[in-house]
Amino acid sequence: MVREEEKAVTAGRMEEKSITRVDGDLRELVGDQVVIEAPLTIYLNGSELVTLLCTPEKIDCLALGFLRSEGFVIAMDEVQALRPRPEEGLVEVELVDQKGLEEKLFGKRTITSGCGKGTIFYNVLDSLRSAPLTGKLKISAARVWELNGELQKKALLFKTTGGVHSAALADSEKLLYFHEDIGRHNAVDKIIGECLLNGTTTEDKALFTSGRLSSEILLKAAKLKIQLIVSRAAPTSLSVELAETLNITLIGFVRGRRMNIYSHPWRII
Amino acid sequence: MVREEEKAVTAGRMEEKSITRVDGDLRELVGDQVVIEAPLTIYLNGSELVTLLCTPEKIDCLALGFLRSEGFVIAMDEVQALRPRPEEGLVEVELVDQKGLEEKLFGKRTITSGCGKGTIFYNVLDSLRSAPLTGKLKISAARVWELNGELQKKALLFKTTGGVHSAALADSEKLLYFHEDIGRHNAVDKIIGECLLNGTTTEDKALFTSGRLSSEILLKAAKLKIQLIVSRAAPTSLSVELAETLNITLIGFVRGRRMNIYSHPWRII
Repeated sequence: MVREEEKAVTAGRMEEKSITRVDGDLRELVGDQVVIEAPLTIYLNGSELVTLLCTPEKIDCLALGFLRSEGFVIAMDEVQALRPRPEEGLVEVELVDQKGLEEKLFGKRTITSGCGKGTIFYNVLDSLRSAPLTGKLKISAARVWELNGELQKKALLFKTTGGVHSAALADSEKLLYFHEDIGRHNAVDKIIGECLLNGTTTEDKALFTSGRLSSEILLKAAKLKIQLIVSRAAPTSLSVELAETLNITLIGFVRGRRMNIYSHPWRII
Repeated sequence: MVREEEKAVTAGRMEEKSITRVDGDLRELVGDQVVIEAPLTIYLNGSELVTLLCTPEKIDCLALGFLRSEGFVIAMDEVQALRPRPEEGLVEVELVDQKGLEEKLFGKRTITSGCGKGTIFYNVLDSLRSAPLTGKLKISAARVWELNGELQKKALLFKTTGGVHSAALADSEKLLYFHEDIGRHNAVDKIIGECLLNGTTTEDKALFTSGRLSSEILLKAAKLKIQLIVSRAAPTSLSVELAETLNITLIGFVRGRRMNIYSHPWRII
């Protein structure tokens, strides 16, 4: 990709700051590109639900994905209206069925995460009771490396600012959706929201992420019945155990032509 | 540090999993060390407040630091009892003054973060109204590099598992406290909790972290009047702006003998 195209892709998502760069004894004032972080407030049925800190782009996808991950929404036909208002830093969501929401809001335990905005309203124990996935997706190791390389190539905001994570949904051929965000959870939620918006089936897809694989990332993907999760980073004990139980193939440390398969290696041929 | 000592430091914080390691056309079953992720529930005055996902170590520090960061506790004399119960994955905290807690719990907005468990009960706007720090700490660039090198040297759990962030409190001479955790927010909260427990003044100290510098990390440190925040990773626009306003020196991309100073470079001599 040429430099001009890079500029277009990263525009509005980063800004220049005057900084002091120190290199050994050398000290100079230079301009540096810093990723934009902004608050996004989600209103659900007219009430303020949560304020996320995020890369302010595709906020409709982020809001929807967040609501899906937290268990407020399962399918798009439950959503009556979705109104992103980027200038005001908010998204309004109206659900078709408004009864039962109060119970959802106050009946669930507050769960929050190691790193990642976390699942705030979701009960992790519910997820542990999820049924194992039955999908039989298979994909070659060479294709995993290729798709992961594509993820890295597309990560232009990361290349310029170093301050974001990326996530992508892929089929066995190519990356379908791609997002970058200051939060690794947000990046995955944007993918989830885009799938909902477009009615994309996820049971036969793979999730690629640049971030560490904690239990929360695994549970987000499990709710979408995603069979394969791939990262260049490390997993945790809990994510490996959940992947084993839920019949998900969990891959970490994908770099160059290497990878560690932590569970269900039969999907990688 | 010799191998035996490393084992002692990382014991109980990681466990071996059987994995399939793929390297080009080679495929082998090997053992791999994975960092342990476990839930920690904080009970405040007998009520369940929150469940964090964390590295289950120094859970008393984590609970205290979390309560400090979220605005439930300012000083140790507000804490009547602190009972870590690691086997059950919980910490019980009793406050001296129990009135007003309900208001705190339900009157505050739910704020959550890009990446990092985030400030769930804290109102970010309150923080923006914080008074700028007045401290005049100065430190040499050489010392910043040295302390950052020490942080990396101590990060044994990261070296073995790749799945954690580290944080340290330093004076102008040496690292005083050091923690690793699967969450970058947790690692910083453990530092904050340890300062509270030991009555350590923080106004004259620096915070070192391996994680990205989002606004939430900056605000956590600002509440402790920490004048200098250093990371090998990138800052966000909002953290740079807050650091500028609050008179905090924010340093990112510390690597070898390089660094980027994003605000108030006069503290680095």
